[in-house]
This record gives sequence, structure tokens and C-alpha cells, in this order.
Amino acid sequence: MKARVIVTLKNGVLDPQGKAIEGALVSLGVNSVNGVRQGKVFDIEIGQSDAEAARETLTAACEKLLANTVIENYTIEIA
Amino acid sequence: MKARVIVTLKNGVLDPQGKAIEGALVSLGVNSVNGVRQGKVFDIEIGQSDAEAARETLTAACEKLLANTVIENYTIEIA
Repeated sequence: MKARVIVTLKNGVLDPQGKAIEGALVSLGVNSVNGVRQGKVFDIEIGQSDAEAARETLTAACEKLLANTVIENYTIEIA
Repeated sequence: MKARVIVTLKNGVLDPQGKAIEGALVSLGVNSVNGVRQGKVFDIEIGQSDAEAARETLTAACEKLLANTVIENYTIEIA
């Protein structure tokens, strides 16, 4: 079973990497970009056929390792 | 207009970062994970109201900066 976890910074948390990307895009001639925030995506292959069990496994993975829940949110999509 | 760009490694490209995450999850007790591949996500605020124009802007951004198209694929989702 395939799943995708997306980890993004919470609102209000500064994102200097996103700001740098925004500046680079403008200097490369890509205007009309008003804001960029970067996050992480994890494509995970789970050895469980039950979606509910897979979601529990992924929640544990996010809480323990994939996301810093002080400053980041995560969403889990199970395909 | 908000958009999300997801950049992932192409199939066949080695992902040592993903392998390390997979190993770390197993050592943290999250079993039943058979594979992890890490990618990047960009949440972009575009100052264009036309979806077609926004998509063109984002394609230019991906080709010029956000993705290395030799080894990475990108998908553009416009909200």
C-alpha cells in the first residue's frame, strides 16, 4: 500500500529557505510569485493492507521522526 | 491564487536519504515500512488569477529552479 506524507511549516513560522527561493525566482525572471514556503514529501510503501492500520503506522512515523510537531504540520494521504 | 508543486525523484534514481529514513523508522520501532523516498513540496502564492497563466508561470519556475529535470519529476496542483 502506497502513502504520501506531506510535512509543512506551521503558519507564523519563518521560512528563510522559501524566501530565498522566492528571491531567486524573481531574479530568474519568474515574476508574479508572491510567496513560497517549502516543505517535505515522503512517499512511503507500507506493508499493511488495512488502511486504518497503515494510517496508525504513519501517524507514529510522523510523530517520532518525520515531522517536528512544534513547528510543522503533517498530512497523510493513503492511495 | 495558491498552488502546490511537488518534486520527486524519478524511478531508478537512488535515494540514500529515503533509505536512511527507512532505517531510522525501523530502529524506532515503526515496522511494516517497506520503502521511503523523499521529495520536496513548495506552496506558492501566485499573483495571477488565470489558472492557465499560473500554470505556465509555475512550469517556468520548475524548469528553471525548483526541479532538476534530469533526475526529478514535478507535479503542479493549482487550488
